[in-house]
Amino acid sequence: MKALVYDGPGQISWTDVPNPAILHPSDAIVRVDTTTICGTDLHILKGDVPAVHNGRILGHEGVGTVIELGQTVSNFTVGDRVIISCIKSCGHCTNCRIGLYSHCLGDEGESGIGWIFGHLIDGTQAEYVRVPYADNSLYKLPENVSDDQGVMLSDILPTGFEIGVKAGHVAPGDVVAVIGAGPVGLAAIATAGLYGAATIIAIDLDENRLDQALVFGATNTVVSGSPGWKAQVLALTDGAGVDVSIEAVGTPQTLTMALDLVRPGGHVANVGVHGQAVTLNMAELWIRNITISMGLVNASTTPMLLKLVAQDKIPASKLATHHFTFDQFLEAYDTFSRAAETKALKVILTRLVGSG
Amino acid sequence: MKALVYDGPGQISWTDVPNPAILHPSDAIVRVDTTTICGTDLHILKGDVPAVHNGRILGHEGVGTVIELGQTVSNFTVGDRVIISCIKSCGHCTNCRIGLYSHCLGDEGESGIGWIFGHLIDGTQAEYVRVPYADNSLYKLPENVSDDQGVMLSDILPTGFEIGVKAGHVAPGDVVAVIGAGPVGLAAIATAGLYGAATIIAIDLDENRLDQALVFGATNTVVSGSPGWKAQVLALTDGAGVDVSIEAVGTPQTLTMALDLVRPGGHVANVGVHGQAVTLNMAELWIRNITISMGLVNASTTPMLLKLVAQDKIPASKLATHHFTFDQFLEAYDTFSRAAETKALKVILTRLVGSG
Repeated sequence: MKALVYDGPGQISWTDVPNPAILHPSDAIVRVDTTTICGTDLHILKGDVPAVHNGRILGHEGVGTVIELGQTVSNFTVGDRVIISCIKSCGHCTNCRIGLYSHCLGDEGESGIGWIFGHLIDGTQAEYVRVPYADNSLYKLPENVSDDQGVMLSDILPTGFEIGVKAGHVAPGDVVAVIGAGPVGLAAIATAGLYGAATIIAIDLDENRLDQALVFGATNTVVSGSPGWKAQVLALTDGAGVDVSIEAVGTPQTLTMALDLVRPGGHVANVGVHGQAVTLNMAELWIRNITISMGLVNASTTPMLLKLVAQDKIPASKLATHHFTFDQFLEAYDTFSRAAETKALKVILTRLVGSG
Repeated sequence: MKALVYDGPGQISWTDVPNPAILHPSDAIVRVDTTTICGTDLHILKGDVPAVHNGRILGHEGVGTVIELGQTVSNFTVGDRVIISCIKSCGHCTNCRIGLYSHCLGDEGESGIGWIFGHLIDGTQAEYVRVPYADNSLYKLPENVSDDQGVMLSDILPTGFEIGVKAGHVAPGDVVAVIGAGPVGLAAIATAGLYGAATIIAIDLDENRLDQALVFGATNTVVSGSPGWKAQVLALTDGAGVDVSIEAVGTPQTLTMALDLVRPGGHVANVGVHGQAVTLNMAELWIRNITISMGLVNASTTPMLLKLVAQDKIPASKLATHHFTFDQFLEAYDTFSRAAETKALKVILTRLVGSG
C-alpha cells in the first residue's frame, strides 16, 4: 500500500510500505477512505515530537471501512463504515476504568498514553491502518453522516468540547472567550452552547478565521492585538472578566491572554499543545480563585457529538475547506501549513476511487 | 487603645492609637480577646504587600466580644462571643451572591477583595476592631469552644479545607500529598479525611512539623529533599502519582513539586501565597489532564468546621503552640518568625486580664 511516511524533520513522502496486519486479537484493519492533517502533524514535521521515529506513518484522524477483524473484536463486522478515534483505549486498565482514556495504559506503543496513531504506532495517513483495541477505538458511522463530518469526530470536535468546554466548566449564561479560531478553537466555539454559554467571543489575529467563527456559533469577535482588544472583550462582560477562557493555540502569549481575561472565580481551559515553558505571574494569580485545566482528549464524547453532527446541530462539514486525493498528500500538507494564506481550516484527503 | 501598628518594612510597634468607631450601620465594634499572627503578616512585614500602608493595624484573625453594633446588624447582640472571619462579605454583591466571598465587591477598602483586615483597613492585632458587614463576617462561638480553637476558624482551617481539600476535589480513597506542614498545610491534613482521603502524605523539610502532621491526621510523612523523597511518595501510590497535590508553601519550587507528584487526571491545589512568578513546563504538562486551582478562602465553611471543632473532630487547639499576652506582641512576632527553631505553629495572643 501507499502511506505518508515521516523520515525526519521536514521529510515526508507518499510512498510504498507493507500493508498492516492483525497483531493482536483485539485489532482491526481498516481501509482509510478519508483522512485529514492536524496541527500536531505540523509539529511532528518540525521535529518537535522526538517520540516520532523515522519511518512512521503519520496521522491520527480518519474515516474508513473495516476489512479484517481480530478474533476478539465483537462490536464490528467487515464492511462497517467507522470513525477511527485519535485515542486508543484498552477499556480495562486503571485509567480506562475511570474514563481517562487519554492515558490508557494498554501496552500498544509506549504505555500510559492514548494518542499513539502517527506517534508511537503507524497512523491513518495511509491506504490501510491497524487499529488496536478496535471495540473501543472505532465508532460506527451512520449512513446520513458524510466522511467530511465523520473525520471531525476523530479528534477536533471531542478535543474542543472535552478539553475546552467541559474541562472549562462552561455553564448556562456564561461569557466564554476562545483564543485561537483554528479548527479546535472552532470546535470549542461550536460546542460551548451545549452547556448554555450566552456569549461566545472568538479572538484571533486572522480576520478570516474570525468570520468563520461567526458561522460556528461565536456571538462576537475580537481581533487579537488590535488597539483596545482587551477592553473590547471586557466590555462584553460585567467588567470583571470572562467566566471561561479557552486557550486553543498553545503559546506562552495566548495562555497569558487567557489568564488575563478570566474573572475571579473563573476557569481557564488550556486546549493548545505547548512546545515551551510558560511563566505564570503567581504573585498576582494566587489570590484570584481561578482554575486552570489542560489535557489530551479522552474522546469519550464522540458518540454524543456524532448524534449532534447527524442532526446537523454542529456544522462539522463546514470545517472541511479543502479537498485532495491521497496522491496529493504533499500539496495538502503545503496548503494546510500556509493556512493564514490559503484560508484552510481542515484539509480533507480521500482515497482514490477504485484503489484498494 | 493599644494596637500593633505597621510603619514600613521591618517596623512594627505595640502602641497607642484611637479607638475604632462605627462608620457604617452594618459595622460592629468587637473587643479582641484572642488573636494570632499569620504567615501573611510576616510577608507584610518584609514589605511584600505594598497595599499595606504605614500606620495600618495588622492582623486578620481573632476571637472577641461584641461591644457595639451598627443600626442594621441583626444577627448579634452586645456581649456575644464571636469569631472574626478573615474575610468580610457584604452578602449582596455579584460575587457574594455566588458564594465568592473572597472577592466581595462591597466598598470597604478597595473593592473586589474580601481580605481587608490588616491589609486595606485596620485589623485584629489590637484591643478593639471595627468589623464591617458584621452580620456576614462574624460567627457566634459556642461556650464549649475555646478561644484557641475559635481563632483557628478565622483563616487557617477554612483556608486549608476550602482552597486545599475542596478546590483539590479530594475524593474517597484518594492519595493526597500536602507540601508544607505549616499551620495551613496542617489544616489541609486535618480536613482531607472529611472527603475520605485514604492516604495523607505530609511533605516538609522540618522533621518537627512532620511529627506534628501525624498528630493532625497525616498517614505518612516524607522529608522533602531527602534522598529518594519523590520515590518515597510514589511508593505510596500505584506508581502513577498522587490523586491530589496540595501546595501550602508558596514558592516556585514547592508548586513545581506539587505538579511533579500528581498523577495524570489529578488535581493540584495551590494554597500558598506567592511572591514570585512560577515557570510551568507546559511542553510536558499540557498532555497530563491535570487541573490547577488557586485562591483566597471564602470562609463559607467556617460554620461547618466550627461544628467539627466543637465535637473535637478537628484538633484545632493543638495548633496553638505558644501563648503570649498583648504586651508581648514583639516577642510573639519574633517567636513566630523563627518557627523552625522555636517549633511554633500558631502563636496565640490574649488580652491582658482586666484591660478593656
